[in-house]
Amino acid sequence: MKLKHLLCLGILFSVEQVLAQKQLTKYVDPYIGSAAHGHVFVGANVPFGAVQLGPTNVFEGWDWCSGYNYASNTIIGFAHTHLSGTGIGDLNDILVMPATGPSQLDYVSTFSHDKEVVKAGYYSVILDKYKIKAELTTSERVGFHRYTFEKGAKNPHVMLDLNAGVGWDSPVETYVKQVDATTIVGYRLSKGWANDQRLYFAVKLSQPLNSLSLSDSTSFSSNGKELKGKRVKAVLNFKSINQDILKLKVGLSPVSYENAMTNLIAEIPAWDFDKVARLADQKWEKELSKVKIEADEETKKTFYTSLYHTMIAPSVFDDVNGDYRGTDKKVYHKPGFTNYTTFSLWDTYRAYHPLFTFLHQDKVSDVVNSFLAIYKQQGKLPVWHLMGNETNTMIGYHAVPIIVDAYLKGFKGFDANLAYEAMKHSAMQKVEGIEYAQEIKYIPSDKIIESVAKGLEYAIDDWCIAQMAKAMNKTEDYNYFSKRAKLYSEYFDKQSQFMRGKLQDGNWRTPFNPIASKHREDDYTEGNAWQYTWLVPQDPEGLISLFGGDAPFTKKLDTLFSMSSAMDAGSSPDISGLVGQYAQGNEPNHHIPYLYAYAGQPWKTADLVRQITDSLYTNKPDGLCGNEDLGQMSSWYVFSAMGFYPVNPANGAYVFGSPIINDAVISLPGNKKFHIKVNANSKENKYIQKILLNGKPYTKSYLRHKDLVAGGELTLFMGNKPSATWGVNPADRPRSVAIE
Amino acid sequence: MKLKHLLCLGILFSVEQVLAQKQLTKYVDPYIGSAAHGHVFVGANVPFGAVQLGPTNVFEGWDWCSGYNYASNTIIGFAHTHLSGTGIGDLNDILVMPATGPSQLDYVSTFSHDKEVVKAGYYSVILDKYKIKAELTTSERVGFHRYTFEKGAKNPHVMLDLNAGVGWDSPVETYVKQVDATTIVGYRLSKGWANDQRLYFAVKLSQPLNSLSLSDSTSFSSNGKELKGKRVKAVLNFKSINQDILKLKVGLSPVSYENAMTNLIAEIPAWDFDKVARLADQKWEKELSKVKIEADEETKKTFYTSLYHTMIAPSVFDDVNGDYRGTDKKVYHKPGFTNYTTFSLWDTYRAYHPLFTFLHQDKVSDVVNSFLAIYKQQGKLPVWHLMGNETNTMIGYHAVPIIVDAYLKGFKGFDANLAYEAMKHSAMQKVEGIEYAQEIKYIPSDKIIESVAKGLEYAIDDWCIAQMAKAMNKTEDYNYFSKRAKLYSEYFDKQSQFMRGKLQDGNWRTPFNPIASKHREDDYTEGNAWQYTWLVPQDPEGLISLFGGDAPFTKKLDTLFSMSSAMDAGSSPDISGLVGQYAQGNEPNHHIPYLYAYAGQPWKTADLVRQITDSLYTNKPDGLCGNEDLGQMSSWYVFSAMGFYPVNPANGAYVFGSPIINDAVISLPGNKKFHIKVNANSKENKYIQKILLNGKPYTKSYLRHKDLVAGGELTLFMGNKPSATWGVNPADRPRSVAIE
Repeated sequence: MKLKHLLCLGILFSVEQVLAQKQLTKYVDPYIGSAAHGHVFVGANVPFGAVQLGPTNVFEGWDWCSGYNYASNTIIGFAHTHLSGTGIGDLNDILVMPATGPSQLDYVSTFSHDKEVVKAGYYSVILDKYKIKAELTTSERVGFHRYTFEKGAKNPHVMLDLNAGVGWDSPVETYVKQVDATTIVGYRLSKGWANDQRLYFAVKLSQPLNSLSLSDSTSFSSNGKELKGKRVKAVLNFKSINQDILKLKVGLSPVSYENAMTNLIAEIPAWDFDKVARLADQKWEKELSKVKIEADEETKKTFYTSLYHTMIAPSVFDDVNGDYRGTDKKVYHKPGFTNYTTFSLWDTYRAYHPLFTFLHQDKVSDVVNSFLAIYKQQGKLPVWHLMGNETNTMIGYHAVPIIVDAYLKGFKGFDANLAYEAMKHSAMQKVEGIEYAQEIKYIPSDKIIESVAKGLEYAIDDWCIAQMAKAMNKTEDYNYFSKRAKLYSEYFDKQSQFMRGKLQDGNWRTPFNPIASKHREDDYTEGNAWQYTWLVPQDPEGLISLFGGDAPFTKKLDTLFSMSSAMDAGSSPDISGLVGQYAQGNEPNHHIPYLYAYAGQPWKTADLVRQITDSLYTNKPDGLCGNEDLGQMSSWYVFSAMGFYPVNPANGAYVFGSPIINDAVISLPGNKKFHIKVNANSKENKYIQKILLNGKPYTKSYLRHKDLVAGGELTLFMGNKPSATWGVNPADRPRSVAIE
Repeated sequence: MKLKHLLCLGILFSVEQVLAQKQLTKYVDPYIGSAAHGHVFVGANVPFGAVQLGPTNVFEGWDWCSGYNYASNTIIGFAHTHLSGTGIGDLNDILVMPATGPSQLDYVSTFSHDKEVVKAGYYSVILDKYKIKAELTTSERVGFHRYTFEKGAKNPHVMLDLNAGVGWDSPVETYVKQVDATTIVGYRLSKGWANDQRLYFAVKLSQPLNSLSLSDSTSFSSNGKELKGKRVKAVLNFKSINQDILKLKVGLSPVSYENAMTNLIAEIPAWDFDKVARLADQKWEKELSKVKIEADEETKKTFYTSLYHTMIAPSVFDDVNGDYRGTDKKVYHKPGFTNYTTFSLWDTYRAYHPLFTFLHQDKVSDVVNSFLAIYKQQGKLPVWHLMGNETNTMIGYHAVPIIVDAYLKGFKGFDANLAYEAMKHSAMQKVEGIEYAQEIKYIPSDKIIESVAKGLEYAIDDWCIAQMAKAMNKTEDYNYFSKRAKLYSEYFDKQSQFMRGKLQDGNWRTPFNPIASKHREDDYTEGNAWQYTWLVPQDPEGLISLFGGDAPFTKKLDTLFSMSSAMDAGSSPDISGLVGQYAQGNEPNHHIPYLYAYAGQPWKTADLVRQITDSLYTNKPDGLCGNEDLGQMSSWYVFSAMGFYPVNPANGAYVFGSPIINDAVISLPGNKKFHIKVNANSKENKYIQKILLNGKPYTKSYLRHKDLVAGGELTLFMGNKPSATWGVNPADRPRSVAIE
């Protein structure tokens, strides 16, 4: 007993020590990206946690996809799930609102940001209307609420609202049951962007409730301890609040409310709110400290908030005992991996998952295993997966680059043969124009909508399959998919030098306007010809030769970045963050600034990276120039700030740009560290002059993943003029092959 | 030209004169009843107008049935239709919100009451978020908006939201079309409490719009001039606002948007907002001045606001050309009467419609004709009719007392034979226990829910049919319905002296608790045995004899009003405004205080009327103790304040209570006036001592309708002690017959 006691004290002491240092979480500002179109989640969560517990505003439209936007001053309650950065709204399930006075069917209070505290793992606000201080923190699967009421508050109560949800979301069946005076359980089955979402919960109260009022329509009745219905709401009434503080723990589960209770008891067994908040902070601190940078304070704020934003999704989608509910709605026990959900793959395959392969090496195989489980359950790899549902949002089969990148980078924790089968299945579907690629043909724009974007994205995925086929010695497949990987060239109109819609008869679609874009109605996907012409990250050399060489290629790129940003009316709202016609706000653009490196003009990449990080990533609430898209926008920044970017999503190479930080230490498994030293970095000194890797001259204009994860020291020497030699020599430029 | 010009000046001058007097509208405070459970409409309308144009808050539950509650500080827009005082939410159609900045799918701004102006026919508020002053006024079928923007406001625009609606309301099909740069038309078909609501609109703008953005889901597109869909929203964009003032006129029609435009042009042809606001004020002034009272200022405020609340519904439900859409959804042309809708008959048959028979004599036949048109179109008389839809809310066939009251009071503008047929149809339906009454049997409480309430209400309606049968010399029917009118006695348990649920086997239902009430789950309708035992307004003498005479009857009444107000948990929220177990907040109670008069103790009625008017009708926002119920709560006050009340809804007699006013002049058609003089009235002098009618002693404790509408002078002499003689003599007491 004594030893255990001392041990506890010891642990607490070290917790306090960590908090005292408080190096990195203090740089996280969850407001960044919460205004305008960033759509990030604001509230309390832990890295990759199933619970995202935060305020839900009155819905005001697209900019409320997460449920919260900085422009609002209303709160209707605190929901346990929120999306972060999507362009479609959903979730905001299990809404809880503390209140006083007469009970209602719906609640809304105003609040002001000066009475709000937003931190990694902690959120608090004063609800003006009810004079209640609400504080929120979480573990992975449990939300923890602490409500401080005014002394002697009248009719204190808590609304548990199973009707509320954001966007298309609407409840299908909801259920509440009072188990005893301090325990409520239930579930919410809903239909929305996620077509069949099932969420179970268990609530523990810090004091017994006085009565429970249940409603399924417009009025409450207080007879009965349980209610099943389409839109059940429960009001938990208290005679008075002990010492004015009421605490609630809410466990979630995709499986059952029994499991939700198991999660609750396992993760937050006691009632020490401050301790749980400290633990949440520590979990963030641990993750953030995987990259320790030196930079000015403003840059640190932007950098660590970006890093924080890369750890909200995917989120764990299982219980502490390993149970999870598959896409087939069956419950799986002990699957042997941690199941994840919320995969925005069209966005995240580009840089988010490459970043994941060195920052979260322990989770890479779990993500691939989650993909493969989905493949077995729904018959195809995930496209855009949300809470155990395939939403089929966006285009491509972009689970492929993620799997191939993992495989080529040496992750072995999954069944490579099954993975290969699953990828090949995706590529052999007879839908969405993929059938044309199968015959080594372009997709006719008069047959298939968004034909150019689809053709280009498929070619990327097919290049990846080819690389895995090669690595698995499947030569025939390698040859076949390599041909498909070259199909991008079919869309290139040599005369106009644009990727264009081609009709079945072989003619280019007319009229053609390279700045025109009609959302979901033309040959591109949230973009125009200026933006899509560059979407060949798997083969920039091939693209350069289509243009006729480096000179015409870079001339066209120069125009892209310097021309007018004017666009036709009716353009997609996703085209934002413009530099010329380049749109940092939308993902198919993200690699374009780095293409100069392939043409031997890396200083232009440097110019652009500095311009974009300076002007389009700020540490203000409107600091993101487009949807965060579950970490992709922030991954672009994290990579670029460190000085490189994964143009090809699966070739194990990161193309140099211009580092923003002055120093960075990336912590790797096995106590390895990769140390990036930047010599003489400044606003003016933005051009890399030379590089040393582990003390030896390094002339390539790209960094190999294998060198990074091996640990070591990279020194970048900066100067205020483009280097005449570094990165210029064709032999040193990035290459369109899987780097050995 | 010159003459016309002078004429115009002349008219304007007289308008100003009227305004300068401003006798009565200044006493109207639309806030009264807008807090707590009053549920009144707040906004701009004219008497019985189709348009109720006012703010819509974020919905917060039952107390937002009208769309607005004083407790809120949010506005999501200004809708053109609102219910006033219901216990179920609906309407709030055609929501308009002015804004600045980026356009959104939904809007919410905070506001404060100190920046709000609420008047009869006019509403204004400052929208905090957009810094816009919004002013609203209306004619009968047209809403008029005047928005004053901040100088140089960025991206000024107006949202036209066809998705929004209150309560169960949800859109089914919506449509917007831009006709030209200043004209928008469309419709909103919705499903809610009104199952198939069809509302057409036409909008005229004071300046051309720059562009129109249309949305049917989550994003906007600005190509196209029209859109049909489930939840269409349109944003009207303006480059800038001429002189910062934008005006909109919005015509409504139940028939077509062409008719909506016809209404717009006919009712508000020009752009003079102030003039239309003055006209709205005048319309209210004209109606309010039908009863000119002398009383203290506080009483005047309560009285005239009550009178105002009796003229919100029913509302006209036709076009200026007479067209309307029937319950059968067919369009009727030139029907020969003004069609009305929104009939909350279970509430309003009690006092609202009797009040209507002398204050709005020109409209009585129109109301009956609206009932008869509904009968022809839907096959039965209206029960609770809303916007051309039968909602079948509440119990009884209470169109009957209204028709009979009109007939017996001499209104001849409808087909009495058809009316009789329709009423008899209602009474001969084989549903809801009516089939038992047809066999002169009680309704078994183990067969039919709310059996006691139904049995009692049916008996009232059947008594009314009997009186009309008698007047039409249908002796057989008279005898038959007179028997049915007596069936109330079947529910009276002589032992407990309560109206109780009786089982099919003849036993009383047990267990029995006279203060118990379970909303929609017991033998009563929003009430308990204490409240329902008195529901025999058609035959109080019969009820008194069931009790065994005046003494036990008044003893029980004394207990009702003096006992504890405690009630079982789970009671209906409609039971409110308690004096003992008497509930002023719910309509089946309303006649009870006046029952003492039938037992020769009119001073106890006086005591209660004073207590209720003093404590349960105040001129504060929470001044109504229950749902306003479309004028019934206020009609109780208007009647009681004048000194009498129609206990029997159709016998042409008003039972005296205790006048609150010191003097009242009721203006009647043909320049007749009925002058109520109250001598020596005061807080203490609440007891009527004697009465003179047209100078002659009047000993009855009830006033005859025919004497009132004939015009004349009634003088009430008040004293501080109950009179030992007035109203005591059995021959002078009110009687349960149709008064000749």
